[in-house]
Amino acid sequence: MSKVDQQLEELQATITSELPPDISLTAVRYEGPELVVYTRDPKKFAQNGDLIRKLASKLRKRITVRPDPEVLTPPAQARERIMEVIPDDAGVTDLDFHEDTGEVVIEAQKPGMVIGRHGSTLRKITQEAGWTPEVVRTPPIESSTVSNVRNFLKQEREDRRDILQKVGRQIHREQLSKDQWVRITTLGCCREVGRASFILSTPETRILVDCGDKPGSEDEVPYLQVNEALGAGANTIDAVVLTHAHLDHSAFIPLLFKYGYDGPIYTTAPTRDLMGLLTLDYLDVAAKEGRTPPYESEMVREAIKHTIPLEYGDVTDIAPDVKLTFHNAGHILGSAISHFHIGDGLYNVAFSGDIHYKDTRLFNGAVNDFPRVETLVLESTYGGRNDYQTDQEDSERNLKEIIQETYDRGGKVLIPAFAVGRSQEIMLVLEEAMRSGDIPTMPIHLDGMIWEATAIHTTYPEYLRDDLRDRIFHEDANPFLAEQFNHIDGGEDEREEVASGDPCIILSTSGMITGGPIMSWLRHVGGDPENSLVFVGYQAQGTFGRRIQNGWDEIPVRDQGRNDTLKLSMDIHTVDGFSGHADRQGLMDFVRTMNPRPEKVLCVHGDERSTQDLSSALYHEFNMRTFSPKNLETFRFV
Amino acid sequence: MSKVDQQLEELQATITSELPPDISLTAVRYEGPELVVYTRDPKKFAQNGDLIRKLASKLRKRITVRPDPEVLTPPAQARERIMEVIPDDAGVTDLDFHEDTGEVVIEAQKPGMVIGRHGSTLRKITQEAGWTPEVVRTPPIESSTVSNVRNFLKQEREDRRDILQKVGRQIHREQLSKDQWVRITTLGCCREVGRASFILSTPETRILVDCGDKPGSEDEVPYLQVNEALGAGANTIDAVVLTHAHLDHSAFIPLLFKYGYDGPIYTTAPTRDLMGLLTLDYLDVAAKEGRTPPYESEMVREAIKHTIPLEYGDVTDIAPDVKLTFHNAGHILGSAISHFHIGDGLYNVAFSGDIHYKDTRLFNGAVNDFPRVETLVLESTYGGRNDYQTDQEDSERNLKEIIQETYDRGGKVLIPAFAVGRSQEIMLVLEEAMRSGDIPTMPIHLDGMIWEATAIHTTYPEYLRDDLRDRIFHEDANPFLAEQFNHIDGGEDEREEVASGDPCIILSTSGMITGGPIMSWLRHVGGDPENSLVFVGYQAQGTFGRRIQNGWDEIPVRDQGRNDTLKLSMDIHTVDGFSGHADRQGLMDFVRTMNPRPEKVLCVHGDERSTQDLSSALYHEFNMRTFSPKNLETFRFV
Repeated sequence: MSKVDQQLEELQATITSELPPDISLTAVRYEGPELVVYTRDPKKFAQNGDLIRKLASKLRKRITVRPDPEVLTPPAQARERIMEVIPDDAGVTDLDFHEDTGEVVIEAQKPGMVIGRHGSTLRKITQEAGWTPEVVRTPPIESSTVSNVRNFLKQEREDRRDILQKVGRQIHREQLSKDQWVRITTLGCCREVGRASFILSTPETRILVDCGDKPGSEDEVPYLQVNEALGAGANTIDAVVLTHAHLDHSAFIPLLFKYGYDGPIYTTAPTRDLMGLLTLDYLDVAAKEGRTPPYESEMVREAIKHTIPLEYGDVTDIAPDVKLTFHNAGHILGSAISHFHIGDGLYNVAFSGDIHYKDTRLFNGAVNDFPRVETLVLESTYGGRNDYQTDQEDSERNLKEIIQETYDRGGKVLIPAFAVGRSQEIMLVLEEAMRSGDIPTMPIHLDGMIWEATAIHTTYPEYLRDDLRDRIFHEDANPFLAEQFNHIDGGEDEREEVASGDPCIILSTSGMITGGPIMSWLRHVGGDPENSLVFVGYQAQGTFGRRIQNGWDEIPVRDQGRNDTLKLSMDIHTVDGFSGHADRQGLMDFVRTMNPRPEKVLCVHGDERSTQDLSSALYHEFNMRTFSPKNLETFRFV
Repeated sequence: MSKVDQQLEELQATITSELPPDISLTAVRYEGPELVVYTRDPKKFAQNGDLIRKLASKLRKRITVRPDPEVLTPPAQARERIMEVIPDDAGVTDLDFHEDTGEVVIEAQKPGMVIGRHGSTLRKITQEAGWTPEVVRTPPIESSTVSNVRNFLKQEREDRRDILQKVGRQIHREQLSKDQWVRITTLGCCREVGRASFILSTPETRILVDCGDKPGSEDEVPYLQVNEALGAGANTIDAVVLTHAHLDHSAFIPLLFKYGYDGPIYTTAPTRDLMGLLTLDYLDVAAKEGRTPPYESEMVREAIKHTIPLEYGDVTDIAPDVKLTFHNAGHILGSAISHFHIGDGLYNVAFSGDIHYKDTRLFNGAVNDFPRVETLVLESTYGGRNDYQTDQEDSERNLKEIIQETYDRGGKVLIPAFAVGRSQEIMLVLEEAMRSGDIPTMPIHLDGMIWEATAIHTTYPEYLRDDLRDRIFHEDANPFLAEQFNHIDGGEDEREEVASGDPCIILSTSGMITGGPIMSWLRHVGGDPENSLVFVGYQAQGTFGRRIQNGWDEIPVRDQGRNDTLKLSMDIHTVDGFSGHADRQGLMDFVRTMNPRPEKVLCVHGDERSTQDLSSALYHEFNMRTFSPKNLETFRFV
């Protein structure tokens, strides 16, 4: 008998001895990090409110109870009982019964009302219907991404269960090594921005953290080919952890499956969905630009199928010697500082991913309170000695003034913006400004993937800033649903109509004017000096955005199939302070107030000057060991 | 056609165009790093004295010319001609004709006389006989190791040619990567002494430097199992380089072949032979101690078969992007500082191996003059701030006084010594002391592997110190042949006879009293207070040597199968200053006078304190970047 089977047998015996005699236990099984317990008495299990919590605490495992398929109440009957239990106000939009596992997925507009106080309604559902409920939110704004992901996972349910069982057995495999070490290997994003990728390794376990592309570069991909990465095969990696969905962290995650990886990806649910959206778009763009995409959309689906979503704060076994916990990083929806607890108290490493330390309108500031952290791997995008940004309050005032002036002269405001993160932040600024009368209420048109990205945000309000979440939860005052927001879904006709109409605000991708509908908008509104173009995000070297900032007033465009030159006459403004990244002050503050202070900091994800400046500043100010690694180095900590 | 075949075809065309029309060319082929040129006109080739040199310089390759087998003079006839050409004084002891390659191996007591001034006699041999001569020295003291190695290689000649051809094609393969980097991964001997092992890697090439055991430890072997070492298979390594034969650098070289490695080992010829001697003994000891040896003696033979011996100063292509040059390290016979020139002027790394910076009686001091070196990997055995050793002159005086005193009272001097290196150094001290009358001439008995190791030394006088070599070459005054040296080859009977006889000196292994004939000698002479025990080498923690130094006077012994306790009554002395390692001063001087000064120094092969002390001292004194790496780290330099 394998060690895992032996372990499961012992667990079954222990649980049986803890259960009241009238509750039967028919099987226990690992599914990913969870222990699944099958019983012929699901209703009685649910009546003993505290039982699962007690078992979980005794066994130190996450436990799910499912009814033995043989005792299932027929779905039609169960549906009736469930609808009786759930208050009408919950707005249930779908019930999906899975007879193989006895689970029912309940999609509702107000998931909180399906869950009930401390899960009381959920327990009642099981008591009454005998099924194990799982609740998801009905997107307040329809999101094709979210519904595609959900439908796909529903359809792949059996495959997925096989995957989870395999992963579960891997996680709970026997530890073999007598040695102890903890190492980090840098595969990208060192002394550069882009192609984030690391290997965290112990004698037992090798974990890949992020696997992104490098914007503005074609050849520079993470060093996956070296032996300590995937050189010995993609399945020498035990787990993949994704800190957030931006392509410079996620673009090559699906590629891993083309290379033969078939293990788990741990990330948050919103990151999974955003990764799906962004990587599929990445393939589209590559195809449109005539480049061979590095993988096919099938691989994106594989990635989604292998994703095990975790919530902030869940301490999860992902290997025999590694526990992973995600914490809010404040950068974009679902972005997570990834904390690894290694061995039994041996060592702790936190990867910041990209962080924003202060609260923004969208997100709470990054968490920097941990049980223990000896080594911090810290992003350094704005780590340079002069990388201080304007306060967001000042930036907002500035933006509102530009809008007011433009409005006053009858013009339109065009804002190039990244679909994920910055757009939603600006939407919140504008919504409040209009609600409070700071600027006149006027239409705000959203073009490109902004609408879809916003829809994904509204699906996961738990990941948004406290007060924003509360507005969405309790007051039904979801700012993203404000009337002035208009989704441009009518193509060129609609754009022309907007362009010839009254003053308005237009948010459009791409954020750096490297393609996408913004090109069309520039053609429509760029020639009129009454209009304004406002940059609210970083413009990389080599992009039209950067060139326009530098004073170019002619850009090449294609008009009805002909190459043409567009003369820009509009007012050009740059308003910084809306970055998703902590600035130099924010990074220093993050470390200064971090609890506990790490012993070592690796400054990564910044150009050479930024990482060295930050490394030096942290060393001098806090007397910690700091590094500005190069790619392809390996650091050993224990 | 493969790139290598294409290259060979082009080489053949170039050489043909350079040759006079009456010299034919029938084939060119790579054998290891050499280009072998076959001709039907070997005699004419040899008459054009400068031709090979000119070709080598034009093609920047090492070139060997061989007669086409079809035109070979019959061996009997060739033997006659060759013996006519070689002066009688050369002392030819064997001629070995290989009809497959047209090579004749000439074993002679005075190889120099077979070679002639600037190779004139060799050329004459080819002119007269048409064969390609290769010369080896007849060991002045019979060495079973040397004759075993030579016989084995003779017997495996065909296999070996296949190996060399395969290696040759590997070395000259096409470069594939557009990337450039140079990295060192530490697999052992960092913050510790023992299990020396490193990977030097570029995008094209991965080279394993050393692979030793850790004395006094059973479990601690080099970290070969990690992915960046052999985790992806032993044949992900392109070449193995061995700095010297001591087991803490060589013990696991044969193991590589058990793991499936079948590539080349680059080392010096004496290191190859000593490695054979020491690893076979290592297997013997393991078997005697009831441990399972990690590999079988067959693997030692594989290692020898795959060895490509290089001489000091030979610049050798070992990969498309790596040239290796060995330089005298002054530590033991054949020990080599290994200098790697990477890319076309991209980067240079030197591994010191173990070094002795000052001249000793046996060896010239370590070379520290290189065309270029950016990074030095430096041993730090005595790198601690207080690791200064007594001058050898003082040590010798001290040793001689102890011997004189012991002699005067009619006692015997017992010196535990390592078979390779320290024994020969002490032999030279004693021989001179007796010759010059500093101490009375008395028998010096050599027990254990000392005699055999000494025989190997006399086979390779080119690797010994200038004046010692000259004495052996020119004056026929080989000090190792002095009459007072007696090989203990009569076992216990002979030992008892010696022990009951007149004053004498006994050198015996093991050097740290961990087993071997020294145990027997202690039983025979240890109880008599007139005798002296003199330590001349480092005694590691946990050995009886160290305990006796610390005052223990009872050691457990086995006498005729019974466990017994031996009461030591002899005089105990320690005379340091005979180490094979540079002391702190020597290490600092090595770097101070190094030309050019390296930019970076990795201090390895020393305990934590020693490596950190040395690293810090080098940084402060020479303002270079210095490191005290841990095992399992990877440093990137380009």
